[in-house]
Amino acid sequence: MVAPLRLGIAGLGTVGAGVLRLLAAEPGLIAARAGRPILPVAVSARERNRNRDVDLSGLAWEDDPVALARREDVDVFVELIGGENGHARAAIEAAIAAGKDVVTANKALLAHHGQMLAEAAEARGRTIRFEAAVAGGIPVIKALGEGLAANRISRVMGVMNGTCNYILTRMEATGLPYATVFEEARGLGYLEADPRLDVDGIDAGHKLALLAALAFGTRVDFEAVDLEGIGRIAIEDIRHAADMGYRIKLLGVARMTESGLEQRMSPCLVPSGSPLGQLEGGTNMVVLEGSGVGQIVLRGPGAGGGPTASAVLADVIDLARGHRGAVFGQPATTLARAVPTPSAVPAPYYLRLGLRDRPGALAQVAAALGDAGVSIDRMRQREHQADVAPVLIVTHPTPPEAVADALGRIGRTGITVGETVSIRIEKV
Amino acid sequence: MVAPLRLGIAGLGTVGAGVLRLLAAEPGLIAARAGRPILPVAVSARERNRNRDVDLSGLAWEDDPVALARREDVDVFVELIGGENGHARAAIEAAIAAGKDVVTANKALLAHHGQMLAEAAEARGRTIRFEAAVAGGIPVIKALGEGLAANRISRVMGVMNGTCNYILTRMEATGLPYATVFEEARGLGYLEADPRLDVDGIDAGHKLALLAALAFGTRVDFEAVDLEGIGRIAIEDIRHAADMGYRIKLLGVARMTESGLEQRMSPCLVPSGSPLGQLEGGTNMVVLEGSGVGQIVLRGPGAGGGPTASAVLADVIDLARGHRGAVFGQPATTLARAVPTPSAVPAPYYLRLGLRDRPGALAQVAAALGDAGVSIDRMRQREHQADVAPVLIVTHPTPPEAVADALGRIGRTGITVGETVSIRIEKV
Repeated sequence: MVAPLRLGIAGLGTVGAGVLRLLAAEPGLIAARAGRPILPVAVSARERNRNRDVDLSGLAWEDDPVALARREDVDVFVELIGGENGHARAAIEAAIAAGKDVVTANKALLAHHGQMLAEAAEARGRTIRFEAAVAGGIPVIKALGEGLAANRISRVMGVMNGTCNYILTRMEATGLPYATVFEEARGLGYLEADPRLDVDGIDAGHKLALLAALAFGTRVDFEAVDLEGIGRIAIEDIRHAADMGYRIKLLGVARMTESGLEQRMSPCLVPSGSPLGQLEGGTNMVVLEGSGVGQIVLRGPGAGGGPTASAVLADVIDLARGHRGAVFGQPATTLARAVPTPSAVPAPYYLRLGLRDRPGALAQVAAALGDAGVSIDRMRQREHQADVAPVLIVTHPTPPEAVADALGRIGRTGITVGETVSIRIEKV
Repeated sequence: MVAPLRLGIAGLGTVGAGVLRLLAAEPGLIAARAGRPILPVAVSARERNRNRDVDLSGLAWEDDPVALARREDVDVFVELIGGENGHARAAIEAAIAAGKDVVTANKALLAHHGQMLAEAAEARGRTIRFEAAVAGGIPVIKALGEGLAANRISRVMGVMNGTCNYILTRMEATGLPYATVFEEARGLGYLEADPRLDVDGIDAGHKLALLAALAFGTRVDFEAVDLEGIGRIAIEDIRHAADMGYRIKLLGVARMTESGLEQRMSPCLVPSGSPLGQLEGGTNMVVLEGSGVGQIVLRGPGAGGGPTASAVLADVIDLARGHRGAVFGQPATTLARAVPTPSAVPAPYYLRLGLRDRPGALAQVAAALGDAGVSIDRMRQREHQADVAPVLIVTHPTPPEAVADALGRIGRTGITVGETVSIRIEKV
């Protein structure tokens, strides 16, 4: 038998423990597929004596992940600490400097420092693999970077934050407002320690930035992702959207346009019957569109110890097989700097406004829309409550700037109460 | 720049032309991702002068695909001829003997001779890659063999023949019977020259046998696939199934059980709202279930020049990157011989029978079911037409042999007209 591939694993949370559990469950199967045994030799974590329900006997312990990354007996450094700087970054830099391959689930770190780390690793003939960083157990990095490698990619879309999707589907199912469901999710431990990472779309934005780099051969540029969270989504909008055949999803879209790279992560309406529209709870979905293949849809668990460990070990097995590859699909030094561009692609929009009970009020709204060049596909006015009637509008495809113009004009009529809500309807 | 990887392409039908077109469209992009240029150098096809709408200038022509496979200037032999024997097999054997890697879209050939060919290739340090052989553009071989390599796979399912799915969804949409839609599909050129390959489930069975080998580390065993085509599906069953919330799909299921490997390709009812139930027309879907990851669903175009060429070139790019790998995920000589086993897993069944208009007739059917140990979940009796009433039954989960027993008992009552239809309802 060939020599084993020896792992140093930093971070023994759900994912780290999941990796050890999966390796312990099927060592023979994994060795047969990898062509050599995969052997964890050393681990590191904050708390040594926490019960993790995995057998750590026979594994060396390092208090310092940097020391773990430098160990002579470690071939591949598996970083499962998390966080865009701190220990995770220091340990990965140490592993690269020591000439080791790295496998990580750390989207934040790669979204911020991916280019620099990829260049450093590739300069030493090493690589960083990150299947587990995007969409949990779905092998989307592999599908995009290898399976669709012959395609010019036109668009990448995805629902990639299970917590947000849980909150939105739970709001729909229960009729409870965002704040209540948010607290419920927090109580269930579904939210990151800093919940803004989830609900402000930051975590999903990190993932989108990584997919965009791979899809378009560009340097990862998280700063350019147009981010909007789910905090402003009202239960009324979820209900009205459902009535009109839509569901609201925190949807990421990356598209290469003539003016540059568009990256946005924001709540969108998608048709209820579409694959994205049917996504429940923590399930993730990624849609890939390429010149040869057309559209591919991948669906699976977006988080959790088992699925994420499956992705981590897929990378490890590839390394054991000698399949190294460039971090972002082509040498990092050849990745282009994309010109960030705001979305200018016309789309239908969902608008909700509160109309005062005045003669001619609706006509004023219609005129404001017309003046902004926005044409109406469908409109519904609901019964008045306390002098205000909700009006729901689905527009024909409209450039985003025309929608912004229309919202300004509507506001200036003075016949609406509160802010007019606008949510893009994404064609999927 | 590294030396180009030189391709010899045998077969210039839709897929072969698609490969040349995709290479010509994006040579720089593909070279950047592959780490070296991918260069077609020679081709072979039956008709030299057919217009294929691709530029063949600069490519050597071989009338004999075996001569193409042996050419000194070919690194990778791309077999797109098709057929389980004949030219395709001879050329692949010649390529392997000449020490070349092979990329093929030929499911029939691999389903019948995959073990022998894999052993021959691996004995020479070469490999055969076949992403394009299963589910067209969906990178399912990669997802299963690499992306899920750390998982013990429990079940693989899929709708993998677009023509059958087209016929079934078209029957449902138009209310036309099988024979009419079959002729329509033939007129549109959707059927293989021998249409039994499609409608008898043979083509989809080939694909399932390949997935099973990869999933379970077993020798590909197409002969053991329990095959049933779509020819007996009546328009009434499609309608009744729809009324009860189901759609009929030609569904492949491979599962490793305690008694051995179950492989079947047969019409099944699936819930209309499930991902499989929503599949329209020629789209394919594969569901993979693993110990770590849970369930992954992949969806995309199952055929066509562009999608299949995308899969062929993904394999070529992997070879260019030096990612060779074992044909079936682990060395062919280590693949186990699976014990084929018929499906014994209980499932709900849909039954349709024509009941004579006699007092106590329904009671006799109910008694026959009860005597066979089959319990009824839902039953509907429709109005009589010419002394016969259609009765529709959905059973509780029942072992297949109990269903067979029940059908025998029902037949012996003499109160039914025609054969009782039974179709398994697959949990998806």
